[in-house]
Amino acid sequence: MPDKIQIRNTFKSFQDDICLALEKVDGCKFTEDLWLRPGGGGGKTRILKGNIIEKGGVNFSAIDGQLPESLCKLMELEPCEFFASGVSIVMHPVNPWVPITHMNIRYFETSTGKWWFGGGIDLTPHYVISEQAIYFHKALQSVCDLHDPAYYNQFKVWADDYFYIPHRKETRGVGGIFFDYLGKEGDLNKDHVFNFVSDVAKAFAPTYIELINENKDKPYTESNIEWQQLRRGRYVEFNLVYDRGTKFGLRTEGRVESILMSLPSLARWEYDYHPKPGSLEEMTLSYLKKDIDWINLP
Amino acid sequence: MPDKIQIRNTFKSFQDDICLALEKVDGCKFTEDLWLRPGGGGGKTRILKGNIIEKGGVNFSAIDGQLPESLCKLMELEPCEFFASGVSIVMHPVNPWVPITHMNIRYFETSTGKWWFGGGIDLTPHYVISEQAIYFHKALQSVCDLHDPAYYNQFKVWADDYFYIPHRKETRGVGGIFFDYLGKEGDLNKDHVFNFVSDVAKAFAPTYIELINENKDKPYTESNIEWQQLRRGRYVEFNLVYDRGTKFGLRTEGRVESILMSLPSLARWEYDYHPKPGSLEEMTLSYLKKDIDWINLP
Repeated sequence: MPDKIQIRNTFKSFQDDICLALEKVDGCKFTEDLWLRPGGGGGKTRILKGNIIEKGGVNFSAIDGQLPESLCKLMELEPCEFFASGVSIVMHPVNPWVPITHMNIRYFETSTGKWWFGGGIDLTPHYVISEQAIYFHKALQSVCDLHDPAYYNQFKVWADDYFYIPHRKETRGVGGIFFDYLGKEGDLNKDHVFNFVSDVAKAFAPTYIELINENKDKPYTESNIEWQQLRRGRYVEFNLVYDRGTKFGLRTEGRVESILMSLPSLARWEYDYHPKPGSLEEMTLSYLKKDIDWINLP
Repeated sequence: MPDKIQIRNTFKSFQDDICLALEKVDGCKFTEDLWLRPGGGGGKTRILKGNIIEKGGVNFSAIDGQLPESLCKLMELEPCEFFASGVSIVMHPVNPWVPITHMNIRYFETSTGKWWFGGGIDLTPHYVISEQAIYFHKALQSVCDLHDPAYYNQFKVWADDYFYIPHRKETRGVGGIFFDYLGKEGDLNKDHVFNFVSDVAKAFAPTYIELINENKDKPYTESNIEWQQLRRGRYVEFNLVYDRGTKFGLRTEGRVESILMSLPSLARWEYDYHPKPGSLEEMTLSYLKKDIDWINLP
């Protein structure tokens, strides 16, 4: 059974592997910042300002210490010591035809013997191209199916619910998979969950790089860029108003620059903007709904 | 004593007067959207995409109905009917030397006989020019002093506390005045409070237009624009993460486009940005602190 050292080291190696894979495609290098958490532990934030990725971050962290009281309540735990490690990724590409993506894996354990994993991958295309959304969901389904045939459907619905912007009545993008607290009830084998989460992490780079390669050389106009900036505005709204990780990080005095690396370099808001009827922009909005069965889309 | 009809009509006339004054300076006209609230009442949203104001909104609303349960708790009120009216303004200028500004006045009453006013004006310069911040605070002090010599100091501190971004350890701008629940305890004369709030509203246009005229023709560079966009990013962070009105509006299914008119057209986030030592940008950051005594600044 993997212990926290092994999990931390594996997570760290995922950060290395993913950064290398992205650098190879992009041609630019990540810069790195090491940081320490006053309460215990720290992290490694890697940022890419690249040729293909306008602003991207691949964060690793491994922190420990006394669990803050507010967290005890939230997680329904008795006061204890904790250890948490994770990798978080957000990529904002230059070309509006390349989708934004986000990946996260996380592990949590307490001195009282509880442990669980969470994570997921999701896609936020500025322009939804249904073939690519189908490809993306099939890739995630394949990873899930290696571990449990129920996982994909379950975690796809969870992503639809999580990556939702209630005030816009829109999903953030075309979703993906999202899961949390896997193992917390003591009902799962730790090797099983660790292997599943590891496979999710390993699937990230090849799946996204395929989408990069398919779209990165498509020409785009000023109006495509404006639409990209508007969609990024929605991304900002989701992350600042609803994302649990962001809110939690800001309220617990996490490292602000690592938390907010998820925000795009330039985002736009226009009053009461409506895309032209029949446009690709309007079609994209029609896809930003929950419960689209991407795998079986006609 | 003013009743709700009179207050609503006066507030509506402030919207008209302020829009006219801004149109005269800007040279462009506001567009107008009327909206109805399903639960009762509605509003008039006016938006300016102008020569001097890149994106500005002057919102009027007057709503009524049954007070939602969540609000009863928040406002420490028994279940009742309510009436609320207000004017909200945010101006994002084209030229980075012209400051962002925000004004709000609001009135609330219940069928159980409670009433109160709230509001304020504050300034968010992209570049803090101390003389202009002093001028702005002196203008607010003059308005306050007409009504109560204690108001300015009290409401200036309240603005410092309210317009604060904890995760950045920065104030949003140079503050101004902020007040709420004036009259709720039954300790104030309604004419007195109404006259005070009205004078705050009347002071808005001349005070801001002075700052427009002083700065609108100053030349600016691409690097000034980038800094403007970074400061607008902070404005977005404040409004989406902390502003009570925005959060309340989004959670109670208010009209999203009217609520989020406060967001700038283009905002920027750069990872771990630090202005050059000795630059105007760095000096601006040194002014984004609570408890600066602008009136007596040496």
